[in-house]
Amino acid sequence: MAPSAVEVDIQAISAYGPARSTVKVDHPLDAEEVRKMEEYFKASLYLCLGMLYLRDNPLLKEPLKKEHIKKRVLGHWGSDAGQAFTWIHMNRLIKKYDLDALFISGPGHGAPGILSQAYLEGVYSEVYPDKTEDEDGMRRFFKSFSFPGGIGSHATPETPGSIHEGGELGYSVSHAFGTVYDHPNLISLTMVGDGEAETGPLATSWHSTKFLNPITDGAVLPVLHLNGYKINNPTLLARISHEELEALFIGYGWKPYFVEGSDTKSMHQSMAATLEHCVLEIKEIQKKARESKKAFRPRWPMIVLRTPKGWTAPRDVDGKRLEGFWRSHQVPIPDVLTNPDHLKLLEAWMRSYGPEKLFADNGKLIPELRELAPTGNSRISANPVGNGGLLRKPLDLPDFRKYGAEKVEPGISIVGNITGLAKFLRDVIAKNTTNFRLFGPDETESNKLAEVYKAGKKVWLGAYFDEDQDGGNLATEGRVMEMLSEHTIEGWLEGYVLSGRHGLLNSYEPFIHIIDSMVNQHCKWLEKCLEVEWRAKVASLNILLTATVWRQDHNGFTHQDPGFLDVVANKSPEVVRIYLPPDGNSLLSVADHCLRSVNYVNVIVADKQEHLQFLSMEEAIEHCTKGAGIWDWASNDQGEEPDVVMASAGDVATHEALAATALLREFLPDVKVRFVNVVDLFRLISETQHPHGMSDSQWKALFTEDKPIIFNFHSYPFLVHRLTYRRPGQQNLHVRGYREKGNIDTPFELAVRNETDRYSLAIAAIDHIPRLHNKASSVREKFVNLQIAARNTAFEDGLDSEEIRNWKWPFPKKI
Amino acid sequence: MAPSAVEVDIQAISAYGPARSTVKVDHPLDAEEVRKMEEYFKASLYLCLGMLYLRDNPLLKEPLKKEHIKKRVLGHWGSDAGQAFTWIHMNRLIKKYDLDALFISGPGHGAPGILSQAYLEGVYSEVYPDKTEDEDGMRRFFKSFSFPGGIGSHATPETPGSIHEGGELGYSVSHAFGTVYDHPNLISLTMVGDGEAETGPLATSWHSTKFLNPITDGAVLPVLHLNGYKINNPTLLARISHEELEALFIGYGWKPYFVEGSDTKSMHQSMAATLEHCVLEIKEIQKKARESKKAFRPRWPMIVLRTPKGWTAPRDVDGKRLEGFWRSHQVPIPDVLTNPDHLKLLEAWMRSYGPEKLFADNGKLIPELRELAPTGNSRISANPVGNGGLLRKPLDLPDFRKYGAEKVEPGISIVGNITGLAKFLRDVIAKNTTNFRLFGPDETESNKLAEVYKAGKKVWLGAYFDEDQDGGNLATEGRVMEMLSEHTIEGWLEGYVLSGRHGLLNSYEPFIHIIDSMVNQHCKWLEKCLEVEWRAKVASLNILLTATVWRQDHNGFTHQDPGFLDVVANKSPEVVRIYLPPDGNSLLSVADHCLRSVNYVNVIVADKQEHLQFLSMEEAIEHCTKGAGIWDWASNDQGEEPDVVMASAGDVATHEALAATALLREFLPDVKVRFVNVVDLFRLISETQHPHGMSDSQWKALFTEDKPIIFNFHSYPFLVHRLTYRRPGQQNLHVRGYREKGNIDTPFELAVRNETDRYSLAIAAIDHIPRLHNKASSVREKFVNLQIAARNTAFEDGLDSEEIRNWKWPFPKKI
Repeated sequence: MAPSAVEVDIQAISAYGPARSTVKVDHPLDAEEVRKMEEYFKASLYLCLGMLYLRDNPLLKEPLKKEHIKKRVLGHWGSDAGQAFTWIHMNRLIKKYDLDALFISGPGHGAPGILSQAYLEGVYSEVYPDKTEDEDGMRRFFKSFSFPGGIGSHATPETPGSIHEGGELGYSVSHAFGTVYDHPNLISLTMVGDGEAETGPLATSWHSTKFLNPITDGAVLPVLHLNGYKINNPTLLARISHEELEALFIGYGWKPYFVEGSDTKSMHQSMAATLEHCVLEIKEIQKKARESKKAFRPRWPMIVLRTPKGWTAPRDVDGKRLEGFWRSHQVPIPDVLTNPDHLKLLEAWMRSYGPEKLFADNGKLIPELRELAPTGNSRISANPVGNGGLLRKPLDLPDFRKYGAEKVEPGISIVGNITGLAKFLRDVIAKNTTNFRLFGPDETESNKLAEVYKAGKKVWLGAYFDEDQDGGNLATEGRVMEMLSEHTIEGWLEGYVLSGRHGLLNSYEPFIHIIDSMVNQHCKWLEKCLEVEWRAKVASLNILLTATVWRQDHNGFTHQDPGFLDVVANKSPEVVRIYLPPDGNSLLSVADHCLRSVNYVNVIVADKQEHLQFLSMEEAIEHCTKGAGIWDWASNDQGEEPDVVMASAGDVATHEALAATALLREFLPDVKVRFVNVVDLFRLISETQHPHGMSDSQWKALFTEDKPIIFNFHSYPFLVHRLTYRRPGQQNLHVRGYREKGNIDTPFELAVRNETDRYSLAIAAIDHIPRLHNKASSVREKFVNLQIAARNTAFEDGLDSEEIRNWKWPFPKKI
Repeated sequence: MAPSAVEVDIQAISAYGPARSTVKVDHPLDAEEVRKMEEYFKASLYLCLGMLYLRDNPLLKEPLKKEHIKKRVLGHWGSDAGQAFTWIHMNRLIKKYDLDALFISGPGHGAPGILSQAYLEGVYSEVYPDKTEDEDGMRRFFKSFSFPGGIGSHATPETPGSIHEGGELGYSVSHAFGTVYDHPNLISLTMVGDGEAETGPLATSWHSTKFLNPITDGAVLPVLHLNGYKINNPTLLARISHEELEALFIGYGWKPYFVEGSDTKSMHQSMAATLEHCVLEIKEIQKKARESKKAFRPRWPMIVLRTPKGWTAPRDVDGKRLEGFWRSHQVPIPDVLTNPDHLKLLEAWMRSYGPEKLFADNGKLIPELRELAPTGNSRISANPVGNGGLLRKPLDLPDFRKYGAEKVEPGISIVGNITGLAKFLRDVIAKNTTNFRLFGPDETESNKLAEVYKAGKKVWLGAYFDEDQDGGNLATEGRVMEMLSEHTIEGWLEGYVLSGRHGLLNSYEPFIHIIDSMVNQHCKWLEKCLEVEWRAKVASLNILLTATVWRQDHNGFTHQDPGFLDVVANKSPEVVRIYLPPDGNSLLSVADHCLRSVNYVNVIVADKQEHLQFLSMEEAIEHCTKGAGIWDWASNDQGEEPDVVMASAGDVATHEALAATALLREFLPDVKVRFVNVVDLFRLISETQHPHGMSDSQWKALFTEDKPIIFNFHSYPFLVHRLTYRRPGQQNLHVRGYREKGNIDTPFELAVRNETDRYSLAIAAIDHIPRLHNKASSVREKFVNLQIAARNTAFEDGLDSEEIRNWKWPFPKKI
């Protein structure tokens, strides 16, 4: 048996153990270059400390006093130095090779490291004119950091050049890949925190190279920042042997290079050599693929950068470790307001960077240092990809009307709701070959969207086997992105959209909860962008939920969860939209609208099976434009007050509500039923709370203010209650929906369990129409018996009865 | 540059390319053993097909006809054979070495493979007496599979021996580790699907070995089932080179052994040798550690099992690939009801297993095969760990009253709410050294729970550095589990609880959304268990949410999301509980209750900062027992009708509501304010909808039916609206809460943005008390001005004003 890894590791790795680098360091920088880069690095670190501590005296022209310190000192120091260091080294190569480069900041709370770069490059002052490159501007810059009304300690939307906030960890690599797809010249340098690297989403996103085409896509250059500590714990990857660490990244398909140490001068040489080697290796791979026109998956280069946490901080404070330990994670010396010795220590530390040599008397970075940065849009912080809305071009969309079901007999015609959409998306792909992609976790074909493969196959840079010819639909140059990781595909899509392109993600409805938190964070990003003037709007992030709760059949209870809508409905009304098109034509209308929209998260719910159709294309467009409306053809209250409003939202829900309406009209012909359908869920809310909300008078025109409303809803019924809680006549609203009751059920049985089936709805109507009080008991009993009979069939045969399965609206409308 | 991996792979791997195994296969089985294992394997596969297809003629005593086939054929074949194969080989070793073994089934929809084992071992018939080991029982067993009212195609709670359903993929490895912690003799054999292996949660869970102590814990033996395909796509890990695959698992810290092929007879030899080698290696590791009493992290053995997807199915059907391709994922020949040739093909296939030789005429497995399985509780499907409630022992809990704040002056005393809890949990750990663990994603110390390390340090089997002596709190034999992966720690906790132990997970509130879907699935598991008679109840899964939305300060908008409660509230009322204790003593009372409870998911929300205290321990117990109540000391409506009810749920929310009450009482002393606090959120719902719900008359006694209620809520306000939507006087309920408005804000500023601050609440009261109409306008204006003044202070200093920060209840109660 091998000796224990623990024992081996303790021996092999002293704190920042033997440096290991597969690039021979032959001192690529001359002494003058090292000096300048070191000075630039110091300028950056000085700014980081300024942001953490100072409200005044930004250049330390006076001795540092308590009143110069923020009353509450907040922020993080841990990963700042490593990030600034890496950015500075990329600057050198941008200038040398005229690179198009973006910087993705993965480690949590590392914003000072990159904000300082944007400020040193002048971009910060360009986008925020009050943060000038002088003493006053610097003071304002410092003060606004982690200060009420100011900016955060992540790479928030206010950060020039950022498309990745990193407040919630785990998405830097998938976001980075999203930015480089179809951006063949872009290199997204991606700092990955070693804390972040422990998360599941990050751990699997290393596999993204199997979906990257070296001809048509750019490259991601990850720098795993092994600084050893999280908030209060060592990191896993910093506590395994070099052998395991190297094997891990080879296993993930990368070629890891190691840059390790704490001596800044030798580290400059090592990083310069290694980063340059990696950039050249990327260029060589791309050249080979592009010249041969043969795409392949190389082992892409990456860097493991091992530097002390809190690098360049004092090694100890009062005998307790600071640099190289988790204590440097946040504010490195927290008590400077109350401990005069520590204030002095801070001052000495800040002065050790020599601000008077780095910044001119007026506060501006001295010219010989400014020269180290690129200029114009070559500056990472000014790269337009980092403000992707600037690059966004509207999609060239085919006319969605052409893809609809024709000659729809409402409630009678049956087609797959997804069928038309699949063809529409096929042609969207065909017409937008470099700025639209479809994303899905191995469910695209199952979700009846396979038609899209005719225009764009599945991107695949893994190995190919002979059998792939037999319907594999794989290609190195595909347009559909499928990996069994909702996190990764969502991360790709976010990165793709934020860097100026368009996309749609399709998923089984129940498992979209896996990315609740990612969608939450994207919504938050979009909302904050609305407050940032210089941010141009990006395309909406579109999510199609299918394989819905009502058609899970043998998949059972684990596959029944329509609750993603509740999560989305909590986000800001400025950025979220929820659509429940009842049929295929309305789905097309909704999809077209969503693909044209900007700055939203659009959620579309549509089941993948064959379903009743209700609307001609023209009717669908009109209905979707209104978002909610009365279906006259299904109603018999024309010109009169209805006895009951039968309402629905969702395809299956509408089917059952319509069948309930038919039951009422057949067995209680004098009951006046109004049929209302809701497509745009936020129509239900007050117009004071959401831009799509309706006024109370509109509400009354649809739902009345005093009639019972039986509302059959696709998802958990409570969502309708919360959206409508203060509507006139709200006490008459009886919502049915999924109530977390399910098993291996036929569709009808599942509906009965949750009281969303036609009989339950018709019975509810009878129970709530006051004038029927006790007068329809025989009809009610009939419905109860019909329901029981229908259930029994299913238990015997495993199938719903023909009558249930083949039900059609019995009152055809001439078309 | 290296040649491209794609090119290399295409050459290196023909479909199931050169077999690779690091265990020398020296034919450990004699011919007779191989024959018997092959027969047992065939019996198992025959049962799998029977489950998929048959409703009658279970033993094929008659020619197979359409009427013997289920009317709807459902289920999955793809991974069945590989799983059955592995189980059977483990049986051999259980018998040979008297192992204590569990089987975790990771691949999606592989239930037939393991249900067949439970049936062959007799356990299925023991727990379901109608599924006898005879022809009738077999028919019923077949028919119930994927049939309405029957069982699902995952390892659902109805499956004997299962603690892992696998409907949602990604958690098999973390669940498996949860089962073996503190179960030193257990080996959890874990099949990992190669689709599942692409998910983020699974990808990072391989690192769990860094938290496994070979002395006090058992072992997980993963078998990565590389069958090559997901639903419609190849899997990543099946399409990388052997070199990468091997490196990946070495990098993750494992020692991978390969068993690859499709010829069943040679595969029996290979699997027997390799599995035995791995089991012996596990035992050797454990022996070394246990004898030396020195824990270490070895490279634990694991197996990569590469077999064709749909193994043993026909290679082609009508010229299209079946075995070894994704077409065998679900029902392998779907059209047997409509295609007579395919029905014949199915019959021939089923008969090729030779059912008449495997089962006696009465339908029972023949004795010589039955002998291959272990007996009694040694049978995997009968292992009590798989029905963990049987093993559950109540915690030995210290008296929580001892840990509370003493001499609480309500609204005046200030302590950290978590302080007492931390000490209580410390002693829970100290008194329950083998069946309680605390879990957290690197936030336990940040969440002010560091006191627990005095009783149990953080488990750490990674490398140790000298600096760890300086407050590292790491130990190989710790009781606190910290990894920066919410998915992994939740998976561990679920596995730990489901195998009969207890635990609590602490997390920042905003990032708990990362595991929405996992908690959803655990709730669904618990609910289904209630319907399974033989399942014993397990301990509740306890989640403490802290670092809450209202105290995020410089973390900003990304750290503000209290919406997990909405996700939980959608789950079945039978299994979810939500508590919002207002202070430290009530938190202790709630925590004690939760740790004693069974079969729930308990969510406790309590901020980690110092806060006002409101209740003595006795009052806290009484208040928490009621779940909601009037605080007389804060009310001035004694013996009268109140003008307004000021209500709150949540610590910060209560603080502000109390301050609003004080404002009203100071400036409008004749206004009668009743103060109501809610701890148990489901008290708000009707008693018809949740066991904790209150009746309408109880509701009226607290909230009145006609007075305005200003309800300050911790989370999104809509949740209260949905819980109370049909309460008497519901239209008078004005709920304030987080409305998705935030930035880098002081606590007061954040409250003002969301109108949950004291002034906004007091103004709302004025606006809604009818008799004040226009009579309190000067007071109202005063509140507006005070609010503005308080905001301005924060913008200048970055701190809330002293007055805001140090506010105390101005009407002290004698204590």
